[in-house]
Amino acid sequence: MAPRRTLRVGMVGYAFMGAAHSHAWRTAGRFFDLPSGIEMTALCGRSEPQVRQAAARLGWSSHETDWRALIERDDIDVVDICTPGDSHAGIAIAALEAGKHVLCEKPLANSVAEAEAMAASAEKATGHSMVGFNYRRVPALALARRLIGQGRLGEIRHVRAQYLQDWLTDPLFPLVWRLRRENAGSGALGDLGAHIVDLAQYLLGQHIESVGALLKTFVAERPLPAASSGLSAAGAAGTDRGRVTVDDAALFTARFTGGAIGIFEATRFASGRKNAMRVEVNGARGSLAFDFESMNELAFYDAAEDPDQAGFRRILATEPGHPYMDAWWPPGHIIGYEHTFTHEVRDFVMAVASGEAPSPSFADGLQVQRVLAAVEASAHANGVQVPVPGSV
Amino acid sequence: MAPRRTLRVGMVGYAFMGAAHSHAWRTAGRFFDLPSGIEMTALCGRSEPQVRQAAARLGWSSHETDWRALIERDDIDVVDICTPGDSHAGIAIAALEAGKHVLCEKPLANSVAEAEAMAASAEKATGHSMVGFNYRRVPALALARRLIGQGRLGEIRHVRAQYLQDWLTDPLFPLVWRLRRENAGSGALGDLGAHIVDLAQYLLGQHIESVGALLKTFVAERPLPAASSGLSAAGAAGTDRGRVTVDDAALFTARFTGGAIGIFEATRFASGRKNAMRVEVNGARGSLAFDFESMNELAFYDAAEDPDQAGFRRILATEPGHPYMDAWWPPGHIIGYEHTFTHEVRDFVMAVASGEAPSPSFADGLQVQRVLAAVEASAHANGVQVPVPGSV
Amino acid sequence: MAPRRTLRVGMVGYAFMGAAHSHAWRTAGRFFDLPSGIEMTALCGRSEPQVRQAAARLGWSSHETDWRALIERDDIDVVDICTPGDSHAGIAIAALEAGKHVLCEKPLANSVAEAEAMAASAEKATGHSMVGFNYRRVPALALARRLIGQGRLGEIRHVRAQYLQDWLTDPLFPLVWRLRRENAGSGALGDLGAHIVDLAQYLLGQHIESVGALLKTFVAERPLPAASSGLSAAGAAGTDRGRVTVDDAALFTARFTGGAIGIFEATRFASGRKNAMRVEVNGARGSLAFDFESMNELAFYDAAEDPDQAGFRRILATEPGHPYMDAWWPPGHIIGYEHTFTHEVRDFVMAVASGEAPSPSFADGLQVQRVLAAVEASAHANGVQVPVPGSV
Amino acid sequence: MAPRRTLRVGMVGYAFMGAAHSHAWRTAGRFFDLPSGIEMTALCGRSEPQVRQAAARLGWSSHETDWRALIERDDIDVVDICTPGDSHAGIAIAALEAGKHVLCEKPLANSVAEAEAMAASAEKATGHSMVGFNYRRVPALALARRLIGQGRLGEIRHVRAQYLQDWLTDPLFPLVWRLRRENAGSGALGDLGAHIVDLAQYLLGQHIESVGALLKTFVAERPLPAASSGLSAAGAAGTDRGRVTVDDAALFTARFTGGAIGIFEATRFASGRKNAMRVEVNGARGSLAFDFESMNELAFYDAAEDPDQAGFRRILATEPGHPYMDAWWPPGHIIGYEHTFTHEVRDFVMAVASGEAPSPSFADGLQVQRVLAAVEASAHANGVQVPVPGSV
Repeated sequence: MAPRRTLRVGMVGYAFMGAAHSHAWRTAGRFFDLPSGIEMTALCGRSEPQVRQAAARLGWSSHETDWRALIERDDIDVVDICTPGDSHAGIAIAALEAGKHVLCEKPLANSVAEAEAMAASAEKATGHSMVGFNYRRVPALALARRLIGQGRLGEIRHVRAQYLQDWLTDPLFPLVWRLRRENAGSGALGDLGAHIVDLAQYLLGQHIESVGALLKTFVAERPLPAASSGLSAAGAAGTDRGRVTVDDAALFTARFTGGAIGIFEATRFASGRKNAMRVEVNGARGSLAFDFESMNELAFYDAAEDPDQAGFRRILATEPGHPYMDAWWPPGHIIGYEHTFTHEVRDFVMAVASGEAPSPSFADGLQVQRVLAAVEASAHANGVQVPVPGSV
Repeated sequence: MAPRRTLRVGMVGYAFMGAAHSHAWRTAGRFFDLPSGIEMTALCGRSEPQVRQAAARLGWSSHETDWRALIERDDIDVVDICTPGDSHAGIAIAALEAGKHVLCEKPLANSVAEAEAMAASAEKATGHSMVGFNYRRVPALALARRLIGQGRLGEIRHVRAQYLQDWLTDPLFPLVWRLRRENAGSGALGDLGAHIVDLAQYLLGQHIESVGALLKTFVAERPLPAASSGLSAAGAAGTDRGRVTVDDAALFTARFTGGAIGIFEATRFASGRKNAMRVEVNGARGSLAFDFESMNELAFYDAAEDPDQAGFRRILATEPGHPYMDAWWPPGHIIGYEHTFTHEVRDFVMAVASGEAPSPSFADGLQVQRVLAAVEASAHANGVQVPVPGSV
Repeated sequence: MAPRRTLRVGMVGYAFMGAAHSHAWRTAGRFFDLPSGIEMTALCGRSEPQVRQAAARLGWSSHETDWRALIERDDIDVVDICTPGDSHAGIAIAALEAGKHVLCEKPLANSVAEAEAMAASAEKATGHSMVGFNYRRVPALALARRLIGQGRLGEIRHVRAQYLQDWLTDPLFPLVWRLRRENAGSGALGDLGAHIVDLAQYLLGQHIESVGALLKTFVAERPLPAASSGLSAAGAAGTDRGRVTVDDAALFTARFTGGAIGIFEATRFASGRKNAMRVEVNGARGSLAFDFESMNELAFYDAAEDPDQAGFRRILATEPGHPYMDAWWPPGHIIGYEHTFTHEVRDFVMAVASGEAPSPSFADGLQVQRVLAAVEASAHANGVQVPVPGSV
Repeated sequence: MAPRRTLRVGMVGYAFMGAAHSHAWRTAGRFFDLPSGIEMTALCGRSEPQVRQAAARLGWSSHETDWRALIERDDIDVVDICTPGDSHAGIAIAALEAGKHVLCEKPLANSVAEAEAMAASAEKATGHSMVGFNYRRVPALALARRLIGQGRLGEIRHVRAQYLQDWLTDPLFPLVWRLRRENAGSGALGDLGAHIVDLAQYLLGQHIESVGALLKTFVAERPLPAASSGLSAAGAAGTDRGRVTVDDAALFTARFTGGAIGIFEATRFASGRKNAMRVEVNGARGSLAFDFESMNELAFYDAAEDPDQAGFRRILATEPGHPYMDAWWPPGHIIGYEHTFTHEVRDFVMAVASGEAPSPSFADGLQVQRVLAAVEASAHANGVQVPVPGSV
């Protein structure tokens, strides 16, 4: 019998995504039967005192302050990238060239060019690579994919997807890194829109072939963050002001390769909607609807039912037969946001162990990036439908 | 004291809308204190046996088979037009020229040109005129308008409006009049989209100034209706086939004159959605959401609340202080679809009695028609944003 | 061919129930194909000026001030009783003895003795009689009964029924007739509990055989109504105070003849619940749930479904195949509270015309009264289970 | 500065509750700033191979096969009891006498006598003790308690609490330990009813002073578990049959010390309800409602609002100001069932470190046990209200 392998992980970044990923690396092997052990070997961040403290708190055995040093270490098998999008390409390509496996947070990159380089690098690398569209790992959404894949919805007609948050409604909220093009690439489009683009394509098993878009920045100027806040996600506002260089909201229509049409909206200005990632799919034989704020539920309408008894069913996706759920609690005992990362780690580890390419790949991430670029191009061309290169 | 006037009504058409309007004319004075009495004087339709039977059933005192004859009658004060859109202009203009008051079902007409003629005629007429956007008379939506008018939502950022039905998902459903451009003008766009365009503009108190659109016909050919079915709304399919000449679904983005942006969708292919006219409005200080399938409810988020206690409230719009509701039942005893017409008749009668112009006017109906025309123009121009003439 | 009969109706009482019944008599024949015509012949009330005005407004051709005079009239076929419970027995028995058909509002009477006399009178009468448990005519609930009758729920285990309102939470709300035992018989128990007792027995097709109860009066004394308010349902409070002599809330457990158990609650102190008549039934093979505040919806869980796809379906009970709904609007165009009375009138007229006994009968009303009496007996006996006489 | 203490934990039992507690001990210090470190020192179970495997999987450093040996170890500060109720008293008392802190799963014991002995032992022990009513640690319910404590609901009138599951509807489900009185003490009553009794008393800050009850066993006999299944929670059925000696469902009414009344239902026969622990509280000034299947939401009705704008708010209890939530994710990113245990461990560790008695205490667990005993006594006395000794 072959000895059980252990994957030794090094993670870059330790803010919001870093905490979520740390929990996932720590937890996946406790609930799932994994073919490999997991060692949380090293955490990497620029500030030594901060990364040291974070490593202790999040449970990493060592720390580094330079990601190049992390990649050079022999005792690291996996590099997990949890930094803002502008640094993804550099780290990922270097890690792949060093023979590491790479898990990279979404969006894959801030530009198509970077994403192309990453996908090309992944193509020729010996290590595996995966982009972190964690919402594919919501059991209710994996169930939705399964139902669509089984043909339960028939030919797909409509997708309507929204990702609604409200943390920017206050015009005095400071100009954090997510509001600067140079760091974030885009605004609601890349932050939120990337998720619903990936999700819609994943659910339908179809690519978006063209988009017609409208982007809007509601609040053109904001106070700069107070000096002490650095690039933190939130934090206090200072007295100086700067320009918001990304979109506040992105609206677009889409044509899919298989004949469906879609309507998409991403915004951080929807008062009262905290994390409303919503998607509805209508097919000739049925429909599905989902809202992340109730992420354990999937609404399913089966048009094959007797019309007198048909109706949207609220499937509580907590049964042992639902994706991922046999590892958790009895039916009705719901799970939360962080489980999506635990499932992601499970799938990544399973794929690496089996030698199969994990999904979604960097090529998938690149394709999403091309959709986002087409959205921006359409918006700049006054909304005209712009084709997405390479959609099939 | 002036003698109490009685309005003598003649109605043209007696299908779905005719039944709804008949109920409204019969009921309004029983629940509301109206300044005029109402007489259901004559019903008009092309087939004598059918219109005679309909008049008896729906409670009209006499009948006519030619709308010109109806308009010539001295004992008719009001002409209520419930026919398909292609006949609206002819009847309405003749009625106005004959000095009648006119209530005309939506959409005002099948083309901008017709609508312009109607609005011009209304402008110079002595009688009053009104277009039947009945959803303005849903108490929960009238409440929504009141809250927005009071500034409870602050500056408006987003509108997302959908009108989803599913009665065309079956490709064997016959080619009824609503699927022919020459009768219906357009498909989901005019039938359903007109409602949400009017509603969004009414709620915001802003016009749409440009749109970027995508129209789609999913089922290009359908069986012709069986010979016996005529122009009925449903009915059996025959063996011959014909082309669908209207859209099956309409998607569009919109810019409003006040700076808000909107996203709209109208379709009759959303399996499981029976009459889901949904609208959500997000402002800087709050949000509102509505779904016609639960038409007695309005969801309201007040961002001024303590964040620990904030949440979308489900206002059951059945309190005596809610629009129209003091005429009906105790709180929690809900009302239905037909009440929107009863309220419409109430408002029309009140306006006529007071001498004030009823709202929405033919000019309002024309403006909606211009938005619909811009949607079609944009779709033909590959989605580019098309301005709506005359928006202010 | 036999000449079409016309039923000539005389109604006693014209408050809340009178308005609802008037609408039903006026409307039923417009939407349903009835075998008889309906004439709204006479309205009866004690105050001549008030009843005259009410008759004009509600559409009755004449009026009476003494119900005995109404019953003596030859041109009355049906007596419809919409008065408080203390007068039901007298009017109903006299009307039946005069050969009239009788429709009597619920609860049938204020005491078992009165109800027994009424049921005995109905038994030997030539006219038909029916008690007005209108909630049986909610399409979603008639559908629920159909599904249970088809065995879709298997053996029934549980009923949980609540009727929650909140109009008495304010201790300064005046001591109206519904709060006096001599007029109302009981409090929440008879007003609201009667509905859920009838409904539970109707849905299950089983009788309640014993109950264990707790009654509570939260506010023992209230201001008397201002002199001018009379016995109105609401109205201004005066300065004198009087004792509340009925229950404010009734809680009870129940055993059904078929082995199911139930839990019931009726209250007018549930802040925020306006008309929340809720019932859930759990059987070995499925469950149903209903809330009157969303009266067009029925939730149905089918335990025979694949566990991975099972879930409560929200059936929008607006399809043409649903009880009563082919008379109304297209799917998704919901109906309201008043329709339950229109359906009740339809069923009553159909039964009278066919010569079959309408349902629920006075015997059914008596049985409900016996359950209510057992509830009171149990509460007085400190909650011990008290059998319901005659349950089978 | 005092050295940071570390709590060394030994846990008894490693089934469902054991997995949940292990996760909590592993996770609490990663998200909350705890004054003590946590060491998962030893896991205890009767079967050596099984407990060894469980310790490895769940992350415990060592294992024991006799709880007495565990208690004797010097390197254990805390004993966490996750076994069936019949062994709680023996382990807890021995652990307390040995000077350990004790966290004991609910229900505290299978009988009042055992619970009294445990509470007496806790009273005189030097270690701290706590009973594991984890649902107090649902953020939405802790928020509910806060709102009631602030008087936002005014005087409390009603509690309606249900705990509905459906895993026993199949009569072929085997006779597992939870269905034997000697192991489980009672059926749905102790398993589920204990939770809602504790929760109702916690939310109201009032004790139940008397109860009137009805217990029912729907399926009197079941197949014994297949020999190999042992006392597992589920597992295959064998061919022999045995008697179910506990209740399948418990219904009861209750009077609270402060004047409120309540209605309770616990069952494992509610088809389609997976973990529907529901509670609604109605007060003179407002109401609250909760359902565990949507455990991140609290519905709140504030009767002080303008009636035109009042309605149940859906508070998404994921804001940083909500109890426990500043440790987790951004608003709208929901948490799950297991977090209740992580919060429980946090509170236990905080209390131990501060020297304050953790809550709920063994005395609180005893009081719940007395309510459950009164429920059983009432059911045996045909439902008569039975007082709960010692309620104040």
